[in-house]
Amino acid sequence: MLNSEFKVVDCTIRDGGLINKWQFSKEMVRKVFLALNASGVDYMELGYRASEKMFTPGEFGLWRFTKDEVVREIVGDTKTEMKLGVMVDIGRVEHDDIAPASESPLDFIRVATYLKDIEKAIWLANHAIEKGYEAFINIMAISSVNDYDLAEGLKQIENETKVMAVNIVDSYGSLYQNNAEHLVKLFLKELKSGICTGFHAHNNLQLGFANTVQALNTGASFCDATINGIGRGAGNCPLELLLGWLKHPKYSIEPVLQAIEDVFIPLSKDIEWGYIIPYMITGLLNEHPRVAIALRNSPEKDKCAEFFRKLTTPECTSNN
Amino acid sequence: MLNSEFKVVDCTIRDGGLINKWQFSKEMVRKVFLALNASGVDYMELGYRASEKMFTPGEFGLWRFTKDEVVREIVGDTKTEMKLGVMVDIGRVEHDDIAPASESPLDFIRVATYLKDIEKAIWLANHAIEKGYEAFINIMAISSVNDYDLAEGLKQIENETKVMAVNIVDSYGSLYQNNAEHLVKLFLKELKSGICTGFHAHNNLQLGFANTVQALNTGASFCDATINGIGRGAGNCPLELLLGWLKHPKYSIEPVLQAIEDVFIPLSKDIEWGYIIPYMITGLLNEHPRVAIALRNSPEKDKCAEFFRKLTTPECTSNN
Repeated sequence: MLNSEFKVVDCTIRDGGLINKWQFSKEMVRKVFLALNASGVDYMELGYRASEKMFTPGEFGLWRFTKDEVVREIVGDTKTEMKLGVMVDIGRVEHDDIAPASESPLDFIRVATYLKDIEKAIWLANHAIEKGYEAFINIMAISSVNDYDLAEGLKQIENETKVMAVNIVDSYGSLYQNNAEHLVKLFLKELKSGICTGFHAHNNLQLGFANTVQALNTGASFCDATINGIGRGAGNCPLELLLGWLKHPKYSIEPVLQAIEDVFIPLSKDIEWGYIIPYMITGLLNEHPRVAIALRNSPEKDKCAEFFRKLTTPECTSNN
Repeated sequence: MLNSEFKVVDCTIRDGGLINKWQFSKEMVRKVFLALNASGVDYMELGYRASEKMFTPGEFGLWRFTKDEVVREIVGDTKTEMKLGVMVDIGRVEHDDIAPASESPLDFIRVATYLKDIEKAIWLANHAIEKGYEAFINIMAISSVNDYDLAEGLKQIENETKVMAVNIVDSYGSLYQNNAEHLVKLFLKELKSGICTGFHAHNNLQLGFANTVQALNTGASFCDATINGIGRGAGNCPLELLLGWLKHPKYSIEPVLQAIEDVFIPLSKDIEWGYIIPYMITGLLNEHPRVAIALRNSPEKDKCAEFFRKLTTPECTSNN
């Protein structure tokens, strides 16, 4: 049953930026901000926050750093109830990169982590909480971990931090609906003290939206989406489908459709995302999309059957 | 739970032909036939069977008529266990167009019908059965009928014909997973005497594959798919996703991927199908895609927000 307290988190700029190193103009991001604000979306993730010592400004666009002063420019004098935030990667941000929340236009920080780094993620999330932010932990590559380790990690989160939610991240786009349901149930069982469960889908198997519906119907209360499903590789759960399905009157699909018409259809001529066979194949094989991304950047980009054979032919001996 | 007796029905040529009036070459259809045969697909629907009195040959390609002699050319001397068949529309085929099964390379005939024409469909299905074919009835536009009328229609089928299966056809691509589950349960309840339930999805809401999985997990035993999801408008459940999900060793995904590489990626440069916003909008609004097809053939093809406003603005008074 749908959790009546669910929240929609847009990560169009943050996840879409993985395609083009976050080379989006301020004008484009302002348009996205206005569309999301008009559509009633609850949270907007504007980009990553990262240290300029680790990424070269210029080579990487503004939304790799998402500095507070840039966020202020995007918001301008627009009134918004939408919460604004950034994602941080462990080891790619320094404490000084995060001002106290009282001095920042940001409301939330999401910590992206692999399960094996959960202690570091808790430490970084607690740092964000101490500075006054709502914090989230996103557990990436969830289809590659086993239930026992996952339950241990969730117990540790439960005991050591007070994040708003822990998000299931299907980085490889490998989950089927029954897997999504199973994981949400596992999260709900382990997170007993008020920490919510969230879901971030990828669309390799054309299940980005379906799995998000499944997660929400199973009791997840945060769900991620992006406009027109933009995102690295096969992309994400399309926001327009999610808002079309959610009947709550606070949401409106029309501003998102206008943004698709004005911004994302033109953008799709320059950068690529969506259901493309090599990404389907990595999803099916439960692998990171990087090999598919490399293929799509090569002259062999459409040789999908050959790509499948390469990935499924044992190299020399079995793994036994 | 998955019905262990499920069958995969490919309708690549028949449904794909709705985009281009079935103007596929024999060479292309032979490639598709060989790929499906190698992939272990159970049924192949090669096209429509229609009367040449009603459609002009030339303007409409070979697969609008799918004559027995053309099917024989496609099969050649290839050994196949795949069942071959055609779809017929009520009123667009004459009895003389259908030879006895013993003289035909075809094994099955699917009758497409709206629920209101169910008596005519039963009559045509019985005609096919009398001639020795496996017959199916496909109930189109299922999202626009109510449960009571549907149950009445299924009772009539149950009483008056011995078709192999009745297929749920989501013509508008409007069903969500819970709707698919509900309909399959309703069909299973009414069809008690051994008539199976099948499912034909459309992909307007990116749920073509998800709903097919849902239908099979609910107990449907026939499912339709097309290579690369080709089909009018948003297209269909992609066969490659279905075969990737089905773990039965009789199926192989690789020949389908090869066909995508060799045939469907080049074809997609000339004709359009897939997740395109105007088709998403008609699916969301539970409408026939014809208005979206008209939009896509106009200079306004990408004006999706304006299109949404037109379809959702009351023209003058309410329908009360």
